[in-house]
Amino acid sequence: MTFRQKLEKIIKKNNSLLSIGLDPELEKIPKHLGKYKDPIFNFNKQIIDATNDLVCAYKPQIAYYSGLGIRGIGSLLKTINYLIHTYPQIPIILDAKRADIESTARLYAKEAFDIFNADAVTVNPYLGLDSLKPFLERKDKGIIILCRTSNKEASDFQNIKVSSDKSPFYLHVAGKVKEWNKTYKNCLLVVGATWPEELRKVREIAPKMFFLVPGIGAQKGNLKKTVKNGLRKDKSGLIINVSRTIIYASSGHNFASSARKEAIKLKERINKYRHE
Amino acid sequence: MTFRQKLEKIIKKNNSLLSIGLDPELEKIPKHLGKYKDPIFNFNKQIIDATNDLVCAYKPQIAYYSGLGIRGIGSLLKTINYLIHTYPQIPIILDAKRADIESTARLYAKEAFDIFNADAVTVNPYLGLDSLKPFLERKDKGIIILCRTSNKEASDFQNIKVSSDKSPFYLHVAGKVKEWNKTYKNCLLVVGATWPEELRKVREIAPKMFFLVPGIGAQKGNLKKTVKNGLRKDKSGLIINVSRTIIYASSGHNFASSARKEAIKLKERINKYRHE
Repeated sequence: MTFRQKLEKIIKKNNSLLSIGLDPELEKIPKHLGKYKDPIFNFNKQIIDATNDLVCAYKPQIAYYSGLGIRGIGSLLKTINYLIHTYPQIPIILDAKRADIESTARLYAKEAFDIFNADAVTVNPYLGLDSLKPFLERKDKGIIILCRTSNKEASDFQNIKVSSDKSPFYLHVAGKVKEWNKTYKNCLLVVGATWPEELRKVREIAPKMFFLVPGIGAQKGNLKKTVKNGLRKDKSGLIINVSRTIIYASSGHNFASSARKEAIKLKERINKYRHE
Repeated sequence: MTFRQKLEKIIKKNNSLLSIGLDPELEKIPKHLGKYKDPIFNFNKQIIDATNDLVCAYKPQIAYYSGLGIRGIGSLLKTINYLIHTYPQIPIILDAKRADIESTARLYAKEAFDIFNADAVTVNPYLGLDSLKPFLERKDKGIIILCRTSNKEASDFQNIKVSSDKSPFYLHVAGKVKEWNKTYKNCLLVVGATWPEELRKVREIAPKMFFLVPGIGAQKGNLKKTVKNGLRKDKSGLIINVSRTIIYASSGHNFASSARKEAIKLKERINKYRHE
């Protein structure tokens, strides 16, 4: 099954556009998990067990693991292994934002898809098409290309106006990716919820594509505007990722049930806006 | 000692602007290394032992290790550990091309500087200044920002003309980085040897900055034009990286001495062009 098929199936089954970001930090997860041999994996496992019927994807950000060295990489491998064996219906998006020249990008694609067994990966478009080919050629996978990111100073470069048509740079990225997608059919775009107007413009350019949308929660993106401006005509087409607001909903023994409550709330708010 | 000081010292001591890319692939390294427990580390160690008096830096590209999973990460850690203890005077550039929003970039900076102990790291500018702050704030380190990359389709985005002054996008990146560097004083730029005209233009904008220059060798960049167009007035300012041409100079038992011969040849050609 391709990433796209897996994604569409779980969106229907769980009736959800919510993705949960598995970005645990040792300093922030509940203290009582210190008793486990692998606190990070145990934290993820409990979050996953409590929320798997509410999501359309899990999105681990690789730096939260590789930033801890080999021990962290081990926690990520264990988390993904647990997901694949226990909840094989849920797509795994590896957030890695990789990019390099083609000969090196081959190795990054191996990292994402063969070492970590991700269903989809985020990549950075700055180096152009050839740098992304080793990803795009994995037709069963989802290739999620940065377009308009959620951070404040994203505008430094992404909003620079282009001479040919005076439109901002990120719309040129969207246009190029739409073109590439005619060949590869496995492209998605990243558009931050913190920029609902930009989201609307990208949706105009790419009416059929799936968007991965970070920025709801800790980054204070507006959920209603995000759904209104980003939704496709079929009321789908968004993967709305929330990390900190859900995974750190409580720092006590009840962290997993608190995460579940927060995930239900977000899933239902998204669905309300989808259908009103 | 900062990266910049370490770099300037070794450039003088070894009289070299040559960096060697440590990008080993199991399928390409000499077969006889299969007898070692860690063939990748052993390959690197022999290359390093044979060339350390000829280089101004070693540049491992992280995907060649992380693409092999935990085993590969172990080989990289061992390689860096060996370098730090045996040749502490040679700066290590971790080629990783990382970028993410600030809260996540913190973890990528930890990965590069605290897990791998690199002296410098390559990063991607697409997300703007705040995304790079966790790197830039490590004032003792070198932050090497992609500007004009060596690959063919780099022009997809990097050469898009900007409306304000009709100059290409990569020159805006160079301009911004020059501005950031007034505050942080630890920025370098990546400019590919495959685009000597672009290199000249970036040098005009940033006359004092160090550039990391990939693209000589397998990528067929022109060495003479690279040196002529990229050199600072003080005949320095370039880190010219070569990987495959040196590390795969021979696939036999003599691979290390062949790598040394190739490195001498390149170092001397660079110096000839520097001073003629």
